[in-house]
Amino acid sequence: MKLRNIISGVISFMALAASITTTAAEPIKTPVPARPAGATDLVGFAAPALDTVRVGFIGLGMRGPDAVDRFAHIPGTKIVALCDIEKDRAEKCQKYLDKAGMERAAIYGGAEDSWKALCDRDDINLVYIATDWVHHAPMAKYAMEKGKHVAIEVPAATSLEEIWDLIDTSERTRRHCMMLENCVYDFFEMNTLNMAQKGLFGEVLHVEGSYIHNLSDFWNYYWNNWRMDFNRKHRGDVYPTHGMGPACQLLDMHRGDRMTTLVAMDTKSVNAPEFIEKTTGKRPETFANGDHTMTMIRTANGKTLHIQHDVVNPRPYSRMYQLTGTKGFANKYPSEGYAFEPEQIASDSIPDHENLSAHGYITDAQRKALTEAYTHPIIKEVGEVAKQVGGHGGMDYIMDYRLVYCLRNGLPLDMDVYDMAEWCSLIPLTAISIENGSAPVEVPDFTRGAWQKLKGYRHAYKK
Amino acid sequence: MKLRNIISGVISFMALAASITTTAAEPIKTPVPARPAGATDLVGFAAPALDTVRVGFIGLGMRGPDAVDRFAHIPGTKIVALCDIEKDRAEKCQKYLDKAGMERAAIYGGAEDSWKALCDRDDINLVYIATDWVHHAPMAKYAMEKGKHVAIEVPAATSLEEIWDLIDTSERTRRHCMMLENCVYDFFEMNTLNMAQKGLFGEVLHVEGSYIHNLSDFWNYYWNNWRMDFNRKHRGDVYPTHGMGPACQLLDMHRGDRMTTLVAMDTKSVNAPEFIEKTTGKRPETFANGDHTMTMIRTANGKTLHIQHDVVNPRPYSRMYQLTGTKGFANKYPSEGYAFEPEQIASDSIPDHENLSAHGYITDAQRKALTEAYTHPIIKEVGEVAKQVGGHGGMDYIMDYRLVYCLRNGLPLDMDVYDMAEWCSLIPLTAISIENGSAPVEVPDFTRGAWQKLKGYRHAYKK
Repeated sequence: MKLRNIISGVISFMALAASITTTAAEPIKTPVPARPAGATDLVGFAAPALDTVRVGFIGLGMRGPDAVDRFAHIPGTKIVALCDIEKDRAEKCQKYLDKAGMERAAIYGGAEDSWKALCDRDDINLVYIATDWVHHAPMAKYAMEKGKHVAIEVPAATSLEEIWDLIDTSERTRRHCMMLENCVYDFFEMNTLNMAQKGLFGEVLHVEGSYIHNLSDFWNYYWNNWRMDFNRKHRGDVYPTHGMGPACQLLDMHRGDRMTTLVAMDTKSVNAPEFIEKTTGKRPETFANGDHTMTMIRTANGKTLHIQHDVVNPRPYSRMYQLTGTKGFANKYPSEGYAFEPEQIASDSIPDHENLSAHGYITDAQRKALTEAYTHPIIKEVGEVAKQVGGHGGMDYIMDYRLVYCLRNGLPLDMDVYDMAEWCSLIPLTAISIENGSAPVEVPDFTRGAWQKLKGYRHAYKK
Repeated sequence: MKLRNIISGVISFMALAASITTTAAEPIKTPVPARPAGATDLVGFAAPALDTVRVGFIGLGMRGPDAVDRFAHIPGTKIVALCDIEKDRAEKCQKYLDKAGMERAAIYGGAEDSWKALCDRDDINLVYIATDWVHHAPMAKYAMEKGKHVAIEVPAATSLEEIWDLIDTSERTRRHCMMLENCVYDFFEMNTLNMAQKGLFGEVLHVEGSYIHNLSDFWNYYWNNWRMDFNRKHRGDVYPTHGMGPACQLLDMHRGDRMTTLVAMDTKSVNAPEFIEKTTGKRPETFANGDHTMTMIRTANGKTLHIQHDVVNPRPYSRMYQLTGTKGFANKYPSEGYAFEPEQIASDSIPDHENLSAHGYITDAQRKALTEAYTHPIIKEVGEVAKQVGGHGGMDYIMDYRLVYCLRNGLPLDMDVYDMAEWCSLIPLTAISIENGSAPVEVPDFTRGAWQKLKGYRHAYKK
C-alpha cells in the first residue's frame, strides 16, 4: 500500500500499534515528594475531641459572612476572631454575633498579613479560610504550623506544590486540613450516596460531575478581579471540586480505590475574553482558560469519572451529578431521576413496584417513597434546621455542622486532606494534559500507599 | 526536594513539563493511504439524476423489513430485489410490495454469497444494506464496483482498513456511499440544527452525543449472536454513529472544520459477561468491551465533542444530544430544553420574550413558539407523512425519503462517504486510545485535503 505522507513518519497500522504500547502508553508523571521524616498517613485520622470549637475567620467578602452567620447557629462554637484585608468587612460581621447574643469577636485586617496575628492566637483551635483562591494554601499551612485545624474554601490549593505542602504539613502537625466542599452535603447527593452505600445501584461504575455556572453577573464582584485573572492565566479545569466531591465519595476514593489516569480537553476561549473587552473596553492579549473544559479519569478498580467546567456560556446551572451502576442509575440535572433493575427496589414501601422497568425513570411517587426510605441519617438529623438557617438551600449549614460535630466528638472529618488533594489536583493535572495535546497524566497517590486501609467511604458518628 | 520513587524516573516538575512537550504531545498516527490514481475527492459530489430509484435490499432480519415497507411509500422508487441469507425472510417482505400494489421483487438468499447476484443485476441503481455489521463494508464495496450507489446501515465500517477501502472505492467509482444514520433526522435534532445554522446559538463550541440503550431485551435476537460477539471481541466505542451524526452536522465537519485529536476511556466489563453467564450458563473467558465508554474529540477550529456508549447498564435511553454555543444552549435528554442570551430570540413571535434569562431554560410556551418559528424545511415538507409511515417516530422515513429525493434530483446526499468515515472512525480510533492508556490519537483527514472546500453543512434542495 502506498502511503501519502512519508515525511510525517506514518507507518503501517500493525507496526504502529505494536510500537506505541511501549511509548505513548506511559502517562505523564509528576513528582511525589517523600513523606516528612517521622510522619504517618492521616487516613482515618481523628484529633482529640474539642469541648468548644473556637474559630477564627479569614476572608469576609463573599462567602465568609454567611459562614459566620451559620456558626452563630451551631451549638458548641465560639467565634473568637474575624479578619479581612478590608477591615470594615470584618467589623460588619459582628452583627451576626450580636443577633445570636454572642460575645463580640476580635477584629483583624487592614494589612496584607493581618491574618497571621489571628493564627498566632492561642485561644483558637480552628481557622476558617474564605479568601481568594491564591491565599488559601499559604494561610492554611501557617495556621496548621500554629497548631490550628483548618477549614478552607474551595479550591483549597491550585498547584501540586501547594497540595503536597498541605498534605506534608497536615501529616507532620497532626492537624485537620479540610476543604469546605459544600456540594457533597446537598440533599439529593446525600440521599443518593446513602442508596449507593446500601447497594441499590449495584456496583457504581461511572460518575459525572461539573461546575456549569454562567458567572457573567458575578465577575465584577471579586476582590481585585482575582477570579477572572485566575481564569485568564490558567488553562484546565480551574474549579473542579463541586463536581469531584460527590463523585469521589460515591467511588470510595482512597478508601479502597484511587484515581490513576486523567485526560483533559478544552475548547478555545471566546466568551471570557469577549466579556473583558465588553466591560473594560480592552481585549486581553492572551486568555488561557477555554470556554468549556472536560476531564476523564480512570481508577485502579476500573471505574471512570467525567468532569466538566464552563463558567462563561449561557447555560442553566448544572453540577451534572450522575451515576451509572451495574443495577441502577441516578441523575440530578436538569431533573432528578432514578432508574433501577426492578428487583433492586421491589418493596412494599415503593408504590407500584411491580411495574418497574430498568429502561425508564421511576415515577415521581416512587422517587418520593424511595427518598423517604433512604433519607441520609445526617439529613434526618439536621436537614430541617439546615433549610431554615440556609446557605445554598441548607447544604452549607450541614457542612459546618458536621465539621463542628466531628471536631467536638473526636471523629475523623467527613473530608480529609487527601480528599482536598484529589479534588484540587484536577487544576494542575488537567492543565498538564491539555498543554500536552490531551496526553494521559498519572494522578498521584496522595495517601502515599494508604489508599486501601479503609474499605469504603463512610461518615463518622459518635457511639 | 527529596523524591520518593527514584526508580520510576520521576524528575522535577519543570524539567518534566519541558520534556513531555516533545514526546507525549505527539498523538498516535494511523496510516493514510494515497488517493487512487486519477480519483478526486467527493466533497459536494452529486451523481447524475435518476428518474426512478431501483433498489435491491440485502439483509432482511431486524432493520431491513421496515426499510422495504418505507420504500413502498416513497414515490419514484421500484423495489427490484430482496435478499437475506435466510431466504424466507426475503420472501416475507413481499407482503409490503403486495400491500402497496407493487410488482413483486426477485428473491435472493440461502447461501453466504447470494447477495452478490443481487449486486450483479443491471436493473438496480441502489443497494440498501441492513445485515450484521461485519458484512456492511465488503457488500458496499462489491456493489459500488458493480456501478451501484450504496446505502449502508450503521456502522457502515468497523475498521480503518474498511473505512479507507470504502472511501477509495467511492472516489474511484464515483458512486455514492451513504451511511443510514437515522438520528440526524429526528425532529428535535433537525429543528435545532436549523436554529444553529440561523445563528441562534452564536458559535457552537461543544457538542455531545451518545448511544445509551440497555439492550438486555435484544441481545438474543441478533442472527448468530453477532452483536454480542462483536462487543466481546472489541474494546472502544463500537456504536458511535447515533451520537456522532447530529453532533458533527452541528460542527460542520469537513465543511470548514475537522476533527484532529481523540482520547477515549472505558470502565471494566461487568454486566455484559454477567449477561452471557446468566443466559448461557458459561462465563466468557475474556470480554473486551467496557460497560461504559467515553470519548473526547477536538477540532481544528478549537471546538470539542463528547461521545458516550453504554448498552448494558440499567439506564433510560439517551443519545445525550447537547450543544453549547457562545449565545445559547440546547439539551434533548432527559427533557428537551433551550437557553439563550435574551437578545438571541427576542421576537414578537416568542411569548414573554422580555423575561428571558441566559441562566435558565426557556418556558414550554417559548419552546413551542420557537420550534414553530424554526421548524426545519424538511420537517415542514415531509414531517407529517413521516410520522404516519413511522420508523423510530418518523426519522427513518425522512432518511429514506431524502436519499431518494437527492438521488432523483441529482443532488449531493445529506451524508457523504466522509461523514460515514468520520462517524465510524471512532470504532477503531477509540480502541487504539484505550489500549494505549487513553493516549491521544490523531483523527485522519478522510477528505485528504478537501475539508475546507465547503463552508458549513447544508442540505441540498432542487432549484
